[in-house]
Amino acid sequence: MKTPVILVVNDDGITAPGILSLIDVVKQFGKVTVVAPNKPQSGMGHAVTLNNTIRVDKTSKNDVDYYSCSGTPVDCVKIAVNKLMPQRPDLIVSGINHGSNSSINVIYSGTMSAAVEGALEGIPSIGFSLCDHSIEADFRASKHFAKKIIKNVLNSDYKKGICLNVNIPKAPIDMIAGIKVCKQANGNWEEDFDERVDPNGKTYYWLTGKFVVYDNTNDTDEWALANNYVSVVPVQYDVTDYSVINDLKHFEDETN
Amino acid sequence: MKTPVILVVNDDGITAPGILSLIDVVKQFGKVTVVAPNKPQSGMGHAVTLNNTIRVDKTSKNDVDYYSCSGTPVDCVKIAVNKLMPQRPDLIVSGINHGSNSSINVIYSGTMSAAVEGALEGIPSIGFSLCDHSIEADFRASKHFAKKIIKNVLNSDYKKGICLNVNIPKAPIDMIAGIKVCKQANGNWEEDFDERVDPNGKTYYWLTGKFVVYDNTNDTDEWALANNYVSVVPVQYDVTDYSVINDLKHFEDETN
Repeated sequence: MKTPVILVVNDDGITAPGILSLIDVVKQFGKVTVVAPNKPQSGMGHAVTLNNTIRVDKTSKNDVDYYSCSGTPVDCVKIAVNKLMPQRPDLIVSGINHGSNSSINVIYSGTMSAAVEGALEGIPSIGFSLCDHSIEADFRASKHFAKKIIKNVLNSDYKKGICLNVNIPKAPIDMIAGIKVCKQANGNWEEDFDERVDPNGKTYYWLTGKFVVYDNTNDTDEWALANNYVSVVPVQYDVTDYSVINDLKHFEDETN
Repeated sequence: MKTPVILVVNDDGITAPGILSLIDVVKQFGKVTVVAPNKPQSGMGHAVTLNNTIRVDKTSKNDVDYYSCSGTPVDCVKIAVNKLMPQRPDLIVSGINHGSNSSINVIYSGTMSAAVEGALEGIPSIGFSLCDHSIEADFRASKHFAKKIIKNVLNSDYKKGICLNVNIPKAPIDMIAGIKVCKQANGNWEEDFDERVDPNGKTYYWLTGKFVVYDNTNDTDEWALANNYVSVVPVQYDVTDYSVINDLKHFEDETN
C-alpha cells in the first residue's frame, strides 16, 4: 500500500495544542500537510472568504509542511486540496477542537465544517473534538481514540467522501467506556445576550447561552458523551427535509 | 387573527436593494422589524460571533424598526429573537439575496443560515434568493413570488420551525413557469485559486470556481431553476448520515 497523504486542519488556529496532538497521531500513518488558520476561527461554521484575498505562509519541520492561512477553516481545505498540496489527500482530519461539537454544534463549528468540506471534495474526512475548552486540556485519551478511528477509516473502503463527527469526553482513557456510533442529538442553545455599556456610554452585547438537549434516547451523541463514550456521528450535507415535501406540493398550485 | 410579527434579515447588508424589496413585501402582512448586518456578509455560512462584542444601531421609519448589526446573519437572528424584539416573531424572512443559493450553496449562504437559525428557534423561516448577482437586479418577479409563498406560510399550520430555501430565476414574471417544491440538487464548486503577486512581491490568492451539478433528475432545485421555475426546498438541520450508521458499527468493537 502506498503511504497515505493526510491533510490536517482545525479552527482554533495553527498553534493550538489540539492540532499539535492530531499531527502527532497522523504522522504515524502517512505524509502530513497542515493547512490551518493563522488565528482562532471558532464558530465560523461553513464561512468562506469571497470578498477578500487569502494569504498563506509556509514552513516545514520534521517532514511536515505547515501552511498558516489567513482564511476560514473551509478556505483552508479548499486551498489545500486545490492549490497547495502536490497530491490529493487520501484523508482529511480536523481538530482536535478545544470544546465539544456534538448535537447542533456541528453546524456552528469551523472544525466540523472543514471536515464536511473535505467530504464535499470526495475525500474521507474526520473532525475530532474534546469536550474540554481549556487551553491546557489533556489530549491523551483523544489521541488514543483518534488513532483507533483513523486506522479504521484508512483500512476501510468507505463510500466516497465519508465524514465523521467524533467527540471525546473529558476523562482519562481508563474511564472512557468505548466508542458509540450514533446520531446527532436534538439540542439547541437557549441564548442570552449579556448587555454592557462601554466607557463612551454606548451599549454592546456578548453572545452567551445554555445548551439544552431535547431528546433522551440512548442513540445520540449527547447520550454517548454523558455516559463516557466517544461519540462517532456520520455526517452528510443534503439538508432537504424530505418529510415535508409532499405537504408543500400545494405551493405549486397556480391559484394560491 | 392577530397581526403577525415579522423579522427580516439578510446577508448582503441592511442597505442592499434585495432586503428593501423584501421589507416592501412583508409590510403588507404584519408588523416588521429588520435586524441585518451593517456590512456585506455573503458566504458567512452559519458563523457566529463568539470572541467579539456585538453592537446594534436602531432607527425607525414608517412603522418599521431597523437595527443595523455588527454581527453575522446568524447573530442577527439570535439577537433579534432573544434580545431586541419585544415580541417573538411569527415568521422570519431572509434576503432577498443577490445571487442563487440553490444546491450545496445552502450551507455556504449567510441568507440561508439565518433562515435555518430561525427554524432552530422554532419559528417558520424562509430564505429568498434571486439568481442575479447584480446590484441593479430586477426584484419584481421575486417580490411577486415571495408574496405568494409568505401568504401560504402565514395561512398554514406548519410544524414548528419549518424552513424553506426559495430561489427565483432571473426572468420577468410572465416568463416564470411557476413554483416547484423540490430537493437540493447534488452539486459542488470546482474551485480554482487565482494566484497573484502584490506590489511587495508577496503571493496572495482569490477563491474562484465553477459550479457543477452532478444529478440530472427533474426533482431538484437546479432543474427547477434551469426550467424557469421558482424552486422551494424545505430544509432541516439533522445532518446525521443515517444510511451508513450500521456500516460503522464495527468502530464500537473493542478489538479494533
